Amino acid sequence: MKLLRYGPPGQEKPGLLDAQGVLRDASAWTDDWADDALAPAALEALQQAHWQQWPQVPGQPRLGCPVGRVRKIVCVGLNYADHAREAGLAPPEEPVLFLKAASALCGPEDDLLLPPQAHKVDWEVELGLVIGQRMQHVPEWRAMEHLAGYVLANDISERAWQMERGGQWDKGKSHDGFAPVGPWLVTPDEVEDPHNLALWLELNGVVMQDGHTSHFIFQVPRVLAYISEFMTLEPGDIVLTGTPAGVGLGHKPVPRFLQDGDVMRLGGQGLGEQRIHCRAWVRENTESR
Amino acid sequence: MKLLRYGPPGQEKPGLLDAQGVLRDASAWTDDWADDALAPAALEALQQAHWQQWPQVPGQPRLGCPVGRVRKIVCVGLNYADHAREAGLAPPEEPVLFLKAASALCGPEDDLLLPPQAHKVDWEVELGLVIGQRMQHVPEWRAMEHLAGYVLANDISERAWQMERGGQWDKGKSHDGFAPVGPWLVTPDEVEDPHNLALWLELNGVVMQDGHTSHFIFQVPRVLAYISEFMTLEPGDIVLTGTPAGVGLGHKPVPRFLQDGDVMRLGGQGLGEQRIHCRAWVRENTESR
Repeated sequence: MKLLRYGPPGQEKPGLLDAQGVLRDASAWTDDWADDALAPAALEALQQAHWQQWPQVPGQPRLGCPVGRVRKIVCVGLNYADHAREAGLAPPEEPVLFLKAASALCGPEDDLLLPPQAHKVDWEVELGLVIGQRMQHVPEWRAMEHLAGYVLANDISERAWQMERGGQWDKGKSHDGFAPVGPWLVTPDEVEDPHNLALWLELNGVVMQDGHTSHFIFQVPRVLAYISEFMTLEPGDIVLTGTPAGVGLGHKPVPRFLQDGDVMRLGGQGLGEQRIHCRAWVRENTESR
Repeated sequence: MKLLRYGPPGQEKPGLLDAQGVLRDASAWTDDWADDALAPAALEALQQAHWQQWPQVPGQPRLGCPVGRVRKIVCVGLNYADHAREAGLAPPEEPVLFLKAASALCGPEDDLLLPPQAHKVDWEVELGLVIGQRMQHVPEWRAMEHLAGYVLANDISERAWQMERGGQWDKGKSHDGFAPVGPWLVTPDEVEDPHNLALWLELNGVVMQDGHTSHFIFQVPRVLAYISEFMTLEPGDIVLTGTPAGVGLGHKPVPRFLQDGDVMRLGGQGLGEQRIHCRAWVRENTESR
């Protein structure tokens, strides 16, 4: 199943994209793709529901992040050897983890407003995992049972904030708009092997990232089990599994960061595509209340 | 006002501690101390409410974290020169920020279950700030308007996980139980100057931390304004302002970490006290679903 959320920011409704590409309203099933609605058992029940009869959604509504009430975003750093190399870092011996504020979440086609004072905004196409069931100290062999599904994500990062402003990465990962997720939450039955997915990103039509999850240093069950030793994963939490080579920071001969007018297109095999226009910050974007 | 949440974990109800020390049920005012109920205007209106007539809560119920639906916890590292010194680090030139998973939150008297494989669990008494109103790119001089109030917090940390497992601190900050907050959310009218508060922590009756917020490297308005440049603060978000000297890692002649049977007592001037028993992990604590 391909689950999604449509409508204006903050007012998204749950929907479903059927096999014919028809967007249907799922409000009769759940108020949101969140909490208990993400439980693997609930998603199995959904397969049997009469969603063919759910109302068709007219037009081309905006899509939001396909998961509602996300509590946290846990990110794995340097999970592809080629990306570690371009960042000038040794491949890690165990997963590097950091957090990204959930306030950074947005939809897959929302504009990216380049924040004031941000000069090194960079892209990172990633496979995201959505948790469906609470995970605490779960062994690898049981990890996959806890998944609600997979998403395409862009772990947007300000490299100076991340690496030159005190050493902790979160500062450069959490601005509003730095976590476009979607278009869909793809349930596990549609992803034969999460370690066999192409991921790519184009900037203004030029391929920048051309990766494949077969190159993970740490595979999905390991990543999930590992995180669950250090913190509890809850339904709706999103795990970002790291990005392959080709980010702007590693661009040759000089780094290439995002500018007003740039367009990112990115995709993942079976996960859909994002298309994000970069725009300069304008003072009116600032809301202090 | 002293606001609190009482009842079993996950089912806390809003309450208020009146000037006579009577605990009153605030359910008639709000379903929770969360979201809009934390807006400075709502808290001002509350001052005028007839809370003297709200029902008294019988007995001595468990207290939870005094803030509901917390989205994120943003922490300032090394905000006291004496603590930076004991950690062997130079005082930072600008705030060091990291995130702590909100799933770590618990009440001020909940037992701390020492996680499996955790050998360097440490304490950090801190002044916490609770956000009442959305903050994005807010200047210092307007920062204080956005506060709902102050809390006592304990930024419990596993030092090996924090510092010897890949370099990003979040891993050692986010286990369940690592964020005892409360007993109360104290509104700004009761805190004359947040830069003039004693903070202390005793382990088994011996004073370990004896600090004072007058020793902040970065004061509250600076911290809030600074964070708001990098990420948006939302109502219910908690900012932990750093810990003074005296943590277990810096203990002489050898570090002292938490063990089964230890009791922490900690307090902050006007903010109340916490009392936390440390207990060994037992297998039954592990819930994978």
